[in-house]
Amino acid sequence: MINLLLINGPNLNLLGQREPSIYGVQTLEAIEAELHKKAEKQGIKLETFQSNSEGALVDRLQKAISKVDAIMINAGAYTHTSVALRDALLSSEIPYVELHLSNTFARESFRHKSLLADRAVGVISGFGPMSYQLAFDGIIAFLMHQERK
Amino acid sequence: MINLLLINGPNLNLLGQREPSIYGVQTLEAIEAELHKKAEKQGIKLETFQSNSEGALVDRLQKAISKVDAIMINAGAYTHTSVALRDALLSSEIPYVELHLSNTFARESFRHKSLLADRAVGVISGFGPMSYQLAFDGIIAFLMHQERK
Amino acid sequence: MINLLLINGPNLNLLGQREPSIYGVQTLEAIEAELHKKAEKQGIKLETFQSNSEGALVDRLQKAISKVDAIMINAGAYTHTSVALRDALLSSEIPYVELHLSNTFARESFRHKSLLADRAVGVISGFGPMSYQLAFDGIIAFLMHQERK
Amino acid sequence: MINLLLINGPNLNLLGQREPSIYGVQTLEAIEAELHKKAEKQGIKLETFQSNSEGALVDRLQKAISKVDAIMINAGAYTHTSVALRDALLSSEIPYVELHLSNTFARESFRHKSLLADRAVGVISGFGPMSYQLAFDGIIAFLMHQERK
Amino acid sequence: MINLLLINGPNLNLLGQREPSIYGVQTLEAIEAELHKKAEKQGIKLETFQSNSEGALVDRLQKAISKVDAIMINAGAYTHTSVALRDALLSSEIPYVELHLSNTFARESFRHKSLLADRAVGVISGFGPMSYQLAFDGIIAFLMHQERK
Amino acid sequence: MINLLLINGPNLNLLGQREPSIYGVQTLEAIEAELHKKAEKQGIKLETFQSNSEGALVDRLQKAISKVDAIMINAGAYTHTSVALRDALLSSEIPYVELHLSNTFARESFRHKSLLADRAVGVISGFGPMSYQLAFDGIIAFLMHQERK
Amino acid sequence: MINLLLINGPNLNLLGQREPSIYGVQTLEAIEAELHKKAEKQGIKLETFQSNSEGALVDRLQKAISKVDAIMINAGAYTHTSVALRDALLSSEIPYVELHLSNTFARESFRHKSLLADRAVGVISGFGPMSYQLAFDGIIAFLMHQERK
Amino acid sequence: MINLLLINGPNLNLLGQREPSIYGVQTLEAIEAELHKKAEKQGIKLETFQSNSEGALVDRLQKAISKVDAIMINAGAYTHTSVALRDALLSSEIPYVELHLSNTFARESFRHKSLLADRAVGVISGFGPMSYQLAFDGIIAFLMHQERK
Amino acid sequence: MINLLLINGPNLNLLGQREPSIYGVQTLEAIEAELHKKAEKQGIKLETFQSNSEGALVDRLQKAISKVDAIMINAGAYTHTSVALRDALLSSEIPYVELHLSNTFARESFRHKSLLADRAVGVISGFGPMSYQLAFDGIIAFLMHQERK
Amino acid sequence: MINLLLINGPNLNLLGQREPSIYGVQTLEAIEAELHKKAEKQGIKLETFQSNSEGALVDRLQKAISKVDAIMINAGAYTHTSVALRDALLSSEIPYVELHLSNTFARESFRHKSLLADRAVGVISGFGPMSYQLAFDGIIAFLMHQERK
Amino acid sequence: MINLLLINGPNLNLLGQREPSIYGVQTLEAIEAELHKKAEKQGIKLETFQSNSEGALVDRLQKAISKVDAIMINAGAYTHTSVALRDALLSSEIPYVELHLSNTFARESFRHKSLLADRAVGVISGFGPMSYQLAFDGIIAFLMHQERK
Amino acid sequence: MINLLLINGPNLNLLGQREPSIYGVQTLEAIEAELHKKAEKQGIKLETFQSNSEGALVDRLQKAISKVDAIMINAGAYTHTSVALRDALLSSEIPYVELHLSNTFARESFRHKSLLADRAVGVISGFGPMSYQLAFDGIIAFLMHQERK
Repeated sequence: MINLLLINGPNLNLLGQREPSIYGVQTLEAIEAELHKKAEKQGIKLETFQSNSEGALVDRLQKAISKVDAIMINAGAYTHTSVALRDALLSSEIPYVELHLSNTFARESFRHKSLLADRAVGVISGFGPMSYQLAFDGIIAFLMHQERK
Repeated sequence: MINLLLINGPNLNLLGQREPSIYGVQTLEAIEAELHKKAEKQGIKLETFQSNSEGALVDRLQKAISKVDAIMINAGAYTHTSVALRDALLSSEIPYVELHLSNTFARESFRHKSLLADRAVGVISGFGPMSYQLAFDGIIAFLMHQERK
Repeated sequence: MINLLLINGPNLNLLGQREPSIYGVQTLEAIEAELHKKAEKQGIKLETFQSNSEGALVDRLQKAISKVDAIMINAGAYTHTSVALRDALLSSEIPYVELHLSNTFARESFRHKSLLADRAVGVISGFGPMSYQLAFDGIIAFLMHQERK
Repeated sequence: MINLLLINGPNLNLLGQREPSIYGVQTLEAIEAELHKKAEKQGIKLETFQSNSEGALVDRLQKAISKVDAIMINAGAYTHTSVALRDALLSSEIPYVELHLSNTFARESFRHKSLLADRAVGVISGFGPMSYQLAFDGIIAFLMHQERK
Repeated sequence: MINLLLINGPNLNLLGQREPSIYGVQTLEAIEAELHKKAEKQGIKLETFQSNSEGALVDRLQKAISKVDAIMINAGAYTHTSVALRDALLSSEIPYVELHLSNTFARESFRHKSLLADRAVGVISGFGPMSYQLAFDGIIAFLMHQERK
Repeated sequence: MINLLLINGPNLNLLGQREPSIYGVQTLEAIEAELHKKAEKQGIKLETFQSNSEGALVDRLQKAISKVDAIMINAGAYTHTSVALRDALLSSEIPYVELHLSNTFARESFRHKSLLADRAVGVISGFGPMSYQLAFDGIIAFLMHQERK
Repeated sequence: MINLLLINGPNLNLLGQREPSIYGVQTLEAIEAELHKKAEKQGIKLETFQSNSEGALVDRLQKAISKVDAIMINAGAYTHTSVALRDALLSSEIPYVELHLSNTFARESFRHKSLLADRAVGVISGFGPMSYQLAFDGIIAFLMHQERK
Repeated sequence: MINLLLINGPNLNLLGQREPSIYGVQTLEAIEAELHKKAEKQGIKLETFQSNSEGALVDRLQKAISKVDAIMINAGAYTHTSVALRDALLSSEIPYVELHLSNTFARESFRHKSLLADRAVGVISGFGPMSYQLAFDGIIAFLMHQERK
Repeated sequence: MINLLLINGPNLNLLGQREPSIYGVQTLEAIEAELHKKAEKQGIKLETFQSNSEGALVDRLQKAISKVDAIMINAGAYTHTSVALRDALLSSEIPYVELHLSNTFARESFRHKSLLADRAVGVISGFGPMSYQLAFDGIIAFLMHQERK
Repeated sequence: MINLLLINGPNLNLLGQREPSIYGVQTLEAIEAELHKKAEKQGIKLETFQSNSEGALVDRLQKAISKVDAIMINAGAYTHTSVALRDALLSSEIPYVELHLSNTFARESFRHKSLLADRAVGVISGFGPMSYQLAFDGIIAFLMHQERK
Repeated sequence: MINLLLINGPNLNLLGQREPSIYGVQTLEAIEAELHKKAEKQGIKLETFQSNSEGALVDRLQKAISKVDAIMINAGAYTHTSVALRDALLSSEIPYVELHLSNTFARESFRHKSLLADRAVGVISGFGPMSYQLAFDGIIAFLMHQERK
Repeated sequence: MINLLLINGPNLNLLGQREPSIYGVQTLEAIEAELHKKAEKQGIKLETFQSNSEGALVDRLQKAISKVDAIMINAGAYTHTSVALRDALLSSEIPYVELHLSNTFARESFRHKSLLADRAVGVISGFGPMSYQLAFDGIIAFLMHQERK
């Protein structure tokens, strides 16, 4: 049985409330609910975690070691600044997908650089809440493919 | 009825033959066949085009104007060098998704800069042939969402 | 009635104790007391918050949404590194003033770049504890001016 | 008798159709027609060529060697990326004017750098279709001036 | 008795006339009148000077040597280019406050660099005409504080 | 009736005297005379101004506000350093053409950056005294085009 | 009697578990135990602290003020990103040694820049768990030397 | 039997005609003839190809896969701009030598960077038509050496 | 008979008054007097000029054309920013020496770049008022040497 | 039996004589004597070498090949400029420790870059003569650890 | 009769001993012997010199002035750092070929910049010991060609 | 009695022989003879030293410690690369003048950066052999001035 972990970083708890014209009207709870339904159908176990604190995110990633098969992470602003998150992901040795609601290349230049992307399985950005669905499908396909090998 | 166009740039005709350890064993024909099946099921019209020539790609994009609802583009090496492709995409005013087989951020530094990404709906990279599936699902979701608005 | 929030970032709880030759002998409590008195006189409600933790500061800013009319923020070291604070401030859509005790341009070059300044109403730096008074007067004048429009 | 060559690069065949608010409603055919009329009046021979393909443009420039007195070139996107066009122009040893419909300095930063400008007689940008008229007048004045010397 | 000098650089004589949506409707005369009133109340002597000429501003600063206790300077465009103004301020050895009507960090990138800021007592920007009031209050507080020492 | 202003910056009063092999033998007076004749024929009012002083150029531009329909400016060396000229042009809200006698891209690298170009209607460089004629024709065509709209 | 504080930053609690080929098989507890034994022998008081949270590390450093004679800090990923840790160390006015298990210069380029190094007594990197022993010996030698002066 | 492929990029078809003082008076045909003679003597099969079109060069390289033992390439201007040629060379997995007639380091700075060099067997530049001879000898020596291993 | 011109830029009229610990106690008048005496002895005609205005300096240099054999220039702060002074010096075609009282390389980094140095006969900096003497001797030796040729 | 080599680069022969406030009063001889004593106690053979000449240092390192088990090197100024020393160290394939008396990160910025550090076992800087002791202990621990593997 | 000089820089005396997988098993003596044989056959005089010392290499180059017709130089690490070698080569006015055993573009980025290349006749890199043969053939061809002119 | 040391770096022993059109026809011996005569007249002791070896120059500077009052140094190519020479000069604590025959700012860009200039008394460049005379006069004036203080 596959175990997935979905990590959401700072300010993503505000989803659906802030700037709906950009981020859509779906709350993080709604997105997580949809993913849980999808996971259940496919017999996959999904855990979710959100925090505004870099340290708490690192703590959570450490707890995942050898318990989780893959990680979906929307690290929000920490994508561009946190070497600690990068280290936590790399030391966990768990494959991960980096995802973003908005197209980070269409925003301020300091958002064009990701500290996580070069070691990710893949990166998805710009599809709004649909980015979560695509990340889910992508990482599952990746795990299936690994298994077959 | 939705009209989609899939554009593949230089060297992608070699898919399945070159460096299979990196790019997988699926040929471009196989990938396109899968997408055609998927499109047919959903009642979507899909056209595909591949060329090694920048000019031919620009010509093809110009012909799509007002005939196509969205574009999926894997511009390969031209992603990083072609202002002409960018201009052709922008002047067509057709929404597009940028996609890559490999994770471009894990490769040479000149592949980290895309001339297409900042105006794309979204970007998907690193999932191998699965990147095409995700791009298809993502752009369809985007079109549906636009319609509802 | 106007609601103001004063945010102080890392190490500012040490004010009046550390390096008094640079930062003066006034403690943060004394500065806050002075501002409370000033606010009371003008019939303004003032809340204050200090934390050394980036996550806690983001949490506090999120709670301010639609409850506060303007923010005064001395983000200390996070001014130069925290995209998360920037996102929290922007997503709150509350006007804010950036303030500093010391003249940041007279210090190490990594303090010359602020991640908050370009979206602030205004920036004040270098006047020691007086910077808080000036920020208070400036943001009140700004709010008055907005109202009149 | 003076022989002129007008070269237009990628996407300029779309003139008058795409983004008319920016580029005006005149088609490339109309612009070329106007120039032909002007040339005829002054007893000047004018040839024109457009292609989306860098290689085809290089081929055309090579054919001009010792047959043409001056070149007007709107290289479009290749202005910023094509060392091959530059080499073709320089090896032809024919004086040329670089021209642009839009003001390239008012656009994306990668359009501020031209690979052709430093060896051109002159550069004209920003006057819409009128840029072609000015380039024509400018290069003729240049040739007259050369002759008198 | 305290002697203050207010210096305004190029284009600031147009205040209240140009782009009122950005700079407000107050003229420089009105701003200076307000400051004169404030100064008079507190028994402070205030002189003012505006010029579009870099040389004239340098001449005026030289005349202030040993006659003025502090300077408020809005150097306008010269803030970003004039080493000569910097030298004049530094050689006068008079403490000064740098002030701006608009938030310079929210404008073109060449306005983010100030040649005066690192040696100023403090910097104030973004509060419109109120910036002059805050600069006045700040520099007076600074002088009082110096005296007490 | 159209009112035009021609501005010439530092060292351009030397035209025709210095380095005639580069700049031609025509003096600035001769160039201005030609333009005056051309203007008269078309029923256009033309004023001209030259100064070596940045402050004087700013003063002259300020006097043009709401009296002039368009400006032709050869700012010479100030093109590359003067934020004050840029501010004066922008605050005047008058459309302007930037022009140069020589091809600035063929000279020292510090001449490749213009502080005026990104907000100009268009830019013309490299045609010697003919640059003035082309700028005149270009700006008149621009004004006609605006009017028709 | 000498009081020492050993600070370990994010992900160092995983020592001995993650990537043992790089970091060795010793856990942080084992390293701390060894240091405690060494300290005891020399009559030195040693406290230790580890956290994944930047804010918690700042809090701990503030509590050390005037209670601790020297600090050994392995700030892990925060070495490269945390201005707040730097400020906490500097405002504590306690001498400190920066240490790393791995040779940071042999890793990604963003690890070559330390925000702590320029104000440290000294820096030690690359000796695995032995780095802690060397840091201990080095800081004790430094304190002895200071005392003798 | 060894199979060699010689690739020449844009503008090299003009050899012997353009700028003979730089490139010598030998035409590309003459150079190819010399190489054919040399190849024949050594019992080596040599094919040659020239094109001004990037796409055509990529097409030709793709056709060489598993038919050619080594490639000599003078990519001309595309050396500095074509990621697509690089990809075609790498995906072919055929060893190649990069060669240039002129010393590229003695020319414009944008010619100092090659997108092909870091993966080539070796690089030869500056010997005029002799560069082709040296490349031939060098790649044959390389193949012999490989074989012996 | 040799004609020399000594040019002094902004703030140099303050010499001897400002910061005597750096610049010495000699006034500009005293320095000029010394040079006049020296010139007289050698039968050389010396003129001097000082201004804080960039425009006035350009005007003065223009008047020197074909009347002066060599120029000594201490352009002060304009050394680092004035393309106009550079243009005036170059268009005059008069050999010049750049001189500075202080060692500009020991000061702020924006003083390390001179816009005049690359076309000067020579550069002298750091000897205080003695720099003027050395510049005088150096330029005279240069003129003598030219004559002999 | 372990063989160690201690290399000291330019100006280190002056130790104890120059700037004792920075480098301490111990001479290089005294430091070497201490290390010899320590080595003797542990049954280790230690050789030492100092030279101001880059070539002589390279010669000495070449002689160490297959005779020495590890190197301690304080390359002084050559740390930042000598690719030749780097090559000599790497081609010797002997593990080495880089050490410095002063904290190089607290000095001029050109001292922040080491050409040796990325391939060293570890780096030690800032502990004065004690740096040599720590380097000795560190490299011995490293060799022991290697042996055990 | 032609006189050639072969210069080898630091660490090249180790050839054949160090890292044979990269540099081959031929010693420098063997390479030089081969070249001597080749030279003798063609009636060419060849001298060789190797040193690890920059000064000794400069001395040797100075002695070659007017005694040598061409130089082949493998400056090793000094290629990237020695302005003195460059000056010695340029002041000798002897044509030279720069050569390298390995492909320097495939190695660390500080090896991509050569201080010698822009003034060399040509550059050869990557062919192992064969690079010396190619350099020999290339420089002889160059000298023959010069002679014919 | 004043003791002076004149240091000349690599390739300066070739003076008068190489490129006389640039460096003049005077040999280093002739220049030194002139300086010796001048020194003798003024009762000054002058020693001179030239070497092509960086290490030898460092050795010579170390021997000068406490025996020499001032140094004139033309470090030639080492000016731009030698941190070791800088260290030797600084650790000697002897005031020095940097001098150059040619105007280094008029040459390759890597000659614009001096590693010695920021700590020199002054810098003189561009006057040919006369630079040595000016350096002599300048340093003597400096020493006199120091004495008077």
